Amino acid sequence: MLIDIDRAVSFLTENDGYTVIAHAHPDGDTLGSGFALCLILRALGKKANVICNDSIPGKFSYLTVDNDEFEEKCVIAVDIADTSLMGAEIKAKYEGRVDLCIDHHGSNKLFAAQTLLDPNAAATAEIIFTLAEKLNVEITQHMADCLYTGISTDTGCFRYSNVTSGTHKMAARLMELGADVVKINVLMFETKTKSYAVLEKLAIESMEFFYDGKCVVIYVTQEMFKKSGSDESECDALAALPRQIEGVLIGVMLREKLDGSFKASVRTHSPVNAAALCAKMGGGGHANAAGCQLFGTMEQAKEELIRNIGAVI
Amino acid sequence: MLIDIDRAVSFLTENDGYTVIAHAHPDGDTLGSGFALCLILRALGKKANVICNDSIPGKFSYLTVDNDEFEEKCVIAVDIADTSLMGAEIKAKYEGRVDLCIDHHGSNKLFAAQTLLDPNAAATAEIIFTLAEKLNVEITQHMADCLYTGISTDTGCFRYSNVTSGTHKMAARLMELGADVVKINVLMFETKTKSYAVLEKLAIESMEFFYDGKCVVIYVTQEMFKKSGSDESECDALAALPRQIEGVLIGVMLREKLDGSFKASVRTHSPVNAAALCAKMGGGGHANAAGCQLFGTMEQAKEELIRNIGAVI
Repeated sequence: MLIDIDRAVSFLTENDGYTVIAHAHPDGDTLGSGFALCLILRALGKKANVICNDSIPGKFSYLTVDNDEFEEKCVIAVDIADTSLMGAEIKAKYEGRVDLCIDHHGSNKLFAAQTLLDPNAAATAEIIFTLAEKLNVEITQHMADCLYTGISTDTGCFRYSNVTSGTHKMAARLMELGADVVKINVLMFETKTKSYAVLEKLAIESMEFFYDGKCVVIYVTQEMFKKSGSDESECDALAALPRQIEGVLIGVMLREKLDGSFKASVRTHSPVNAAALCAKMGGGGHANAAGCQLFGTMEQAKEELIRNIGAVI
Repeated sequence: MLIDIDRAVSFLTENDGYTVIAHAHPDGDTLGSGFALCLILRALGKKANVICNDSIPGKFSYLTVDNDEFEEKCVIAVDIADTSLMGAEIKAKYEGRVDLCIDHHGSNKLFAAQTLLDPNAAATAEIIFTLAEKLNVEITQHMADCLYTGISTDTGCFRYSNVTSGTHKMAARLMELGADVVKINVLMFETKTKSYAVLEKLAIESMEFFYDGKCVVIYVTQEMFKKSGSDESECDALAALPRQIEGVLIGVMLREKLDGSFKASVRTHSPVNAAALCAKMGGGGHANAAGCQLFGTMEQAKEELIRNIGAVI
């Protein structure tokens, strides 16, 4: 059931013993929202903990709070559109038991008993901030750090098309409330892991231009993962690089899978439709971001790709 | 003479026939500020043009306005800390003739008859926005685009330490006034020229780690400029890359000059002092960003650099 913010406020004030679930492969918004909500509930005199299926990356350690011992009575999911995103262990334990989900994904599956959903919010942290204000909680610096982290990471530091004037207004207020945005921006946006930096170097070395520079292809192989100490979890950011080059309409990252096949991540600028292009190779996705699987050697995979691109560029 | 904003408002309302000077190698703030000011003056019924020593990069074309014919009576410099930054031709014509300088650089040399200076403004465009409000000018979408461009580019899209809560509040208002931030953010922050992309690829290929990964060195040579079609104007952004890697305390870019010497651009994290390190090699700068010149072959230059770094790391 979808509920409005006043109903969510009532739920939070009337209950106690909260377990707040962040999604698996946690990012800045699920963690920032989760720990902010935990701190807000504790400020209201409630018991609350945050749990996550996966360990929390070190760069987010400034967000965390220690968990307390208490009897769990309520379960809240934050920034989770579907139970599959909880991760296997958490899903096994909590599926069907989530009392409230707070989320900004329009694709939310409404798996919780009650869902507070705002698809116009750039981040779930925006919704948590509004809740905190409705609850009359005094925002501490720690809460402000959490909320700023959620908002800034889900907007690529105010760069993506989900940013609204409300997003900037919240950032202004969070700065006034003491959020350490200088530290957070350096940690989130100016720091690459060494393994990612090496993988990026190897991927950029593989860069090739096709069709008068309108198409750029980079690739990563299992050997490059080994050489860099990196893994698939770090290569999503790479997929964005080829399309960033001026004049490029189609940017592709080919990623060698463990079974020897290749995953092509295709990013396009209008008018090229990435989903239509990938559909020709058995894949799919969105108009500007899609993917497909290719087989054979790297050269054969690239050939099939370039041939199909030739038909639409 | 330093003046306050009310005095600047009087100056703008009482005069006419304005030439607004943007600095050489124009960036988003000098152009955004300059064209916004020109549009504001025209909205007040004044004659105003913008001039720049260098041609305006294509990516800024959405900011420009056509110049009119009129008798020049007043000269205003925007975002210009020193006459040397005007560029040779403009400097030759206008040095000693600037009536008003509007700037946010604390280092401003006060070369103009009157200077409106706010070193706490993240961008000169913030000052122009405040002026527009004081002048009761209705902000058009074109003005909002100019002002948002100045603010967002001088803050690395709200990432740098110069951002204040006031910066975010202005961004919120500019969005409400119609600034096309989606288009501007893609153009400014998601687009690399092809020549820059190729130069970056070559520079990243040159990356070497020293001292357990605490120091990273990349280099660019004249041959790499030729190969990429790029030039020195595009390699400032490269200097930031090495320090972005996790665990790196000292990031260096070595740039081969036309005379065969090397310019080292050194970026450090605390506690390493870049200025002190560069001073040992005859250079200088700030605590976290400094430079020096090195001689000999590339290998000799690198050796001298690494030896000096060894003493401080």
